[in-house]
Amino acid sequence: MRPQIVLFGDSITEQSFRSGSWGASLADTYSRKADVLVRGYGGYNTRWALFLLHHLFPIDSTKPPVAVTIFFGANDAALKGRTSDRQHVPVEEYKENLRKIVQHLKECSPTMLIVLITPPIDEEGRKQFAKSVYGDKAMELPERTNEMAGVYARQCVELAKDLGICSIDIWYKMQETEGWQKKFLSDGLHLTPEGNAVVYQEVVRVFNDAQLSAEEMPYDFPHHSKIDGKNPEKAFEQQCV
Amino acid sequence: MRPQIVLFGDSITEQSFRSGSWGASLADTYSRKADVLVRGYGGYNTRWALFLLHHLFPIDSTKPPVAVTIFFGANDAALKGRTSDRQHVPVEEYKENLRKIVQHLKECSPTMLIVLITPPIDEEGRKQFAKSVYGDKAMELPERTNEMAGVYARQCVELAKDLGICSIDIWYKMQETEGWQKKFLSDGLHLTPEGNAVVYQEVVRVFNDAQLSAEEMPYDFPHHSKIDGKNPEKAFEQQCV
Repeated sequence: MRPQIVLFGDSITEQSFRSGSWGASLADTYSRKADVLVRGYGGYNTRWALFLLHHLFPIDSTKPPVAVTIFFGANDAALKGRTSDRQHVPVEEYKENLRKIVQHLKECSPTMLIVLITPPIDEEGRKQFAKSVYGDKAMELPERTNEMAGVYARQCVELAKDLGICSIDIWYKMQETEGWQKKFLSDGLHLTPEGNAVVYQEVVRVFNDAQLSAEEMPYDFPHHSKIDGKNPEKAFEQQCV
Repeated sequence: MRPQIVLFGDSITEQSFRSGSWGASLADTYSRKADVLVRGYGGYNTRWALFLLHHLFPIDSTKPPVAVTIFFGANDAALKGRTSDRQHVPVEEYKENLRKIVQHLKECSPTMLIVLITPPIDEEGRKQFAKSVYGDKAMELPERTNEMAGVYARQCVELAKDLGICSIDIWYKMQETEGWQKKFLSDGLHLTPEGNAVVYQEVVRVFNDAQLSAEEMPYDFPHHSKIDGKNPEKAFEQQCV
């Protein structure tokens, strides 16, 4: 019955319902108005995401989501020949995969709000994380770099412009803040509470600009203050009786 | 495609996706396994909830929820003749309304896990809250008492036994802890982070006992570690190709 907002992405999306994280905050903002569904798959790149696409977003759905965020790139941009080599996807393919995802969603619903999001990387944070997990066996060379994440981010933003859809360049946005590496990222990749707040605020801003603000969406059922204790039927007449 | 868990209740449920709250924690626990949907309606009592029942849980749904929590009572137990008089529902009717909700859900799906939950009240906390909002105009007499909430809680637990379903007596459970009033309730009614943790833990315990533990539920799609970088099709063969 309620409109659906779907968050599609990798671990940054999968973890978005942890305490104070951006997905849960979005669900709270749209409480009683829209359902926020997580479709986050830790470790996935856009190549693997394509396998899920038609299952998560069936083309013949009678009620496709009103909005979908697509937040991949952190795994695609993993460097070849390093620890996360298996997850690497060349940047040209990454862009084409994103294009396929967007085109499929547009086929599902031409009015759907589609938002592409880019992630930043902090090499030093990744290194510390690797050392904490693997000890001295951790590779000295980082498996991801922010420079390479930026190459992918630029392609993502360019694609959004080409396709006339929205993008949120978190890669760029976070770097505007001094000390973004530790302030916004907990392990060089995943979000701190402050990092979650940045993503949440940016998503809300884009949704608001697209006329999907929670404030302007109707409640699914009457606010309790509109219910007459002696004659509750009245408040529910239009929607429920 | 995924199983659904629905949280049905008043403001304690509506607010359950705020930072660190029990609904969001549940959604995180069931990430990639089940969707947790909030159907919380601040200020609602069981009488008003009945108006929504057939809309939220259509009898002919081909995919009813696998589990529903029903968390009302805080408004039903508001005292007659006090500030929240409008929300008061007599205890006998409260019990009958809960019975109707449970019976309807059983009709939707005989295998659905249905869990009734009871709320406690801290009069002193409510009084302080009223003073903070209304100043000196706040009524001296509390609009809710924990004693009365206990009368409703006992009927709720008794009903669950009668109907052979689960209940979580948060009213009783919280009072086992010294200083529960401030520790678990932020304004005498809504939950602190610690109070959210209690509700979350109890819900997870009941879900686990009912063979609905997240650990035992399958992932909707393969974990990334099961995907062969050179031959990803293989991992997706069963579910997605």
